[in-house]
Amino acid sequence: MSELKTIQLKAPYLIFLGEETSPTYAKTGAGIAHWRKEDCLGQMNLEGGSVDIGLPKMNIAEASDQGAKTLVIGTSVVGGAIPDSWLPVLIEALEAGMDIAAGVHTKLNDNEALVEAAKNAGQKLIDVRTPPKNIPVGNGKKRTGKRLLTVGTDCALGKKYTALAIDKDLNSRGLKSTFRATGQTGILISGSGMPIDAVVADFLSGAAEVLSPDNDPDHWDIIEGQGALHHPGYAAVSMGLLMGSQPDVFVVCTELGREKVSGWPEFDLPSIGEVIQRTTDIGKRTNKDIRCIGISVNSSKFSEPEALEKMQEIEKEYGLPVVDPIRFGVEKLTEVIIGS
Amino acid sequence: MSELKTIQLKAPYLIFLGEETSPTYAKTGAGIAHWRKEDCLGQMNLEGGSVDIGLPKMNIAEASDQGAKTLVIGTSVVGGAIPDSWLPVLIEALEAGMDIAAGVHTKLNDNEALVEAAKNAGQKLIDVRTPPKNIPVGNGKKRTGKRLLTVGTDCALGKKYTALAIDKDLNSRGLKSTFRATGQTGILISGSGMPIDAVVADFLSGAAEVLSPDNDPDHWDIIEGQGALHHPGYAAVSMGLLMGSQPDVFVVCTELGREKVSGWPEFDLPSIGEVIQRTTDIGKRTNKDIRCIGISVNSSKFSEPEALEKMQEIEKEYGLPVVDPIRFGVEKLTEVIIGS
Repeated sequence: MSELKTIQLKAPYLIFLGEETSPTYAKTGAGIAHWRKEDCLGQMNLEGGSVDIGLPKMNIAEASDQGAKTLVIGTSVVGGAIPDSWLPVLIEALEAGMDIAAGVHTKLNDNEALVEAAKNAGQKLIDVRTPPKNIPVGNGKKRTGKRLLTVGTDCALGKKYTALAIDKDLNSRGLKSTFRATGQTGILISGSGMPIDAVVADFLSGAAEVLSPDNDPDHWDIIEGQGALHHPGYAAVSMGLLMGSQPDVFVVCTELGREKVSGWPEFDLPSIGEVIQRTTDIGKRTNKDIRCIGISVNSSKFSEPEALEKMQEIEKEYGLPVVDPIRFGVEKLTEVIIGS
Repeated sequence: MSELKTIQLKAPYLIFLGEETSPTYAKTGAGIAHWRKEDCLGQMNLEGGSVDIGLPKMNIAEASDQGAKTLVIGTSVVGGAIPDSWLPVLIEALEAGMDIAAGVHTKLNDNEALVEAAKNAGQKLIDVRTPPKNIPVGNGKKRTGKRLLTVGTDCALGKKYTALAIDKDLNSRGLKSTFRATGQTGILISGSGMPIDAVVADFLSGAAEVLSPDNDPDHWDIIEGQGALHHPGYAAVSMGLLMGSQPDVFVVCTELGREKVSGWPEFDLPSIGEVIQRTTDIGKRTNKDIRCIGISVNSSKFSEPEALEKMQEIEKEYGLPVVDPIRFGVEKLTEVIIGS
């Protein structure tokens, strides 16, 4: 039986930015350069492209000479399809011995010219929105090692960033920690993971189990949350991820000042307390010792003094440390993890 | 924009039983004959087949003469693939103007000979394990009409049977009611539905919304539950179905004497009270008035007097009516529905 696998990218990377001129559309590339600089050889812009993510500029031949193993498409594509202008470059990369990885809507593997070139070159086209095959049904069995899951009051309020920041801080202190990505951007940043929201319902908790396998007793998996247990559209994703992750601890992520579920204006944001309660209730099923160790806020709607005041209020209300990873770092959370 | 659709089969049916000799493997056919006799013209056995589901025996030509619209494969297939011995008959059915519907593991649409014949005949091959395309993300908006969802302490303990029995009883009393199938057998029995556990995670609650659309204010959708909110493998399916179904009322299904999750021996069965609590907590998000109206048990491990005694104890403990649909019918539940 072959080992169960998550999606895996080979480092080092060449980050491809096409003709992109707007940093907004190159967030994925910028994220990889920020969180995994050591895995990035350089960036490649096509003629007309001006986005700079701070990496050395190089072409396919130069990247290949330096040993690039994967060309990662670091920009989103308007309309979703791979532009014709990219094809010669992408094919050149395949012929130079690189895989290509992307999270674009139209799959690399649906582009006949790329599929043909990859086959001839013996390289892979890695669509990070496509789950690996043969995901099992979740078995719920206890695994060795420790796990932290970021959960949320809603989508898009810092679950990925919080997890990445905690992982980085733990690693910088010499502790054993691995960021476990569950979404396309996280997978491209970390080079591996499981696109949990693209998994078929029956296999959701199994996919989460595959993502964080047995590990050393003192090793931490820092798992990127998806969706929210109170979300009218995406609660099922969060449920499967929580059951299968069997986290020892979790961090609740929220945005200060957000009052409604983003895009679902009929739905009030649940309180932090409601999220703690539901996550604990459900999470106990696969880890009876699950507990909340803190709260991570995105405070960007407020000035720094206002934000600090609000964070202090929340700290007092719940008796838990509150951080804003972007403004003030996550040390208060990692200290709890180290002490646990 | 085309209307959002569930899987749909055209009645009347010819139930195809192949060479099957064991009633155990012909449960689907027997279920259709039991619950939808009015939609069944007859049954067809191949040479060597002996299973009798109580319908008139006929061949393709006879069924076609009587107006059969769909040949339904009513038996499971060892190994999953369509046996070669079936092909001439299935192709004859297509040529006679019937669709073919099945829930077998190897899809009808993966069999080249069938695909070719269906194309030539202008008929459909309906794999009821394959979800329809273009399922939206759940929007959580309140829909008109009333909804009942069967939920469970575990899988395989009567959620489908309970829903079918309630629907039948409501219809027999002249009330407006529709059984909404969420699994392959239920879909084949009722002729329509949504294979909820085969839907991609992001679209789970959306699939449940499509399954029970706006309806008359006094119409009841009786929705077949799947999985269980406490299930280590399938909780996500139940979560999406609950959020999207927005049930007004629910019935908890359990098996008397079952102590562990079937197939997951490390996990205790949750109590009926825990299931009521969690279903209510989560269900409130999309229907603030959700409530449990009763409990449906499978009491087959006990004698009738023992079963009645245990059911009385449960009735006393929870202050809710308790039924065993197979032994004693569901009238106690439908009376609550009618009174509500």
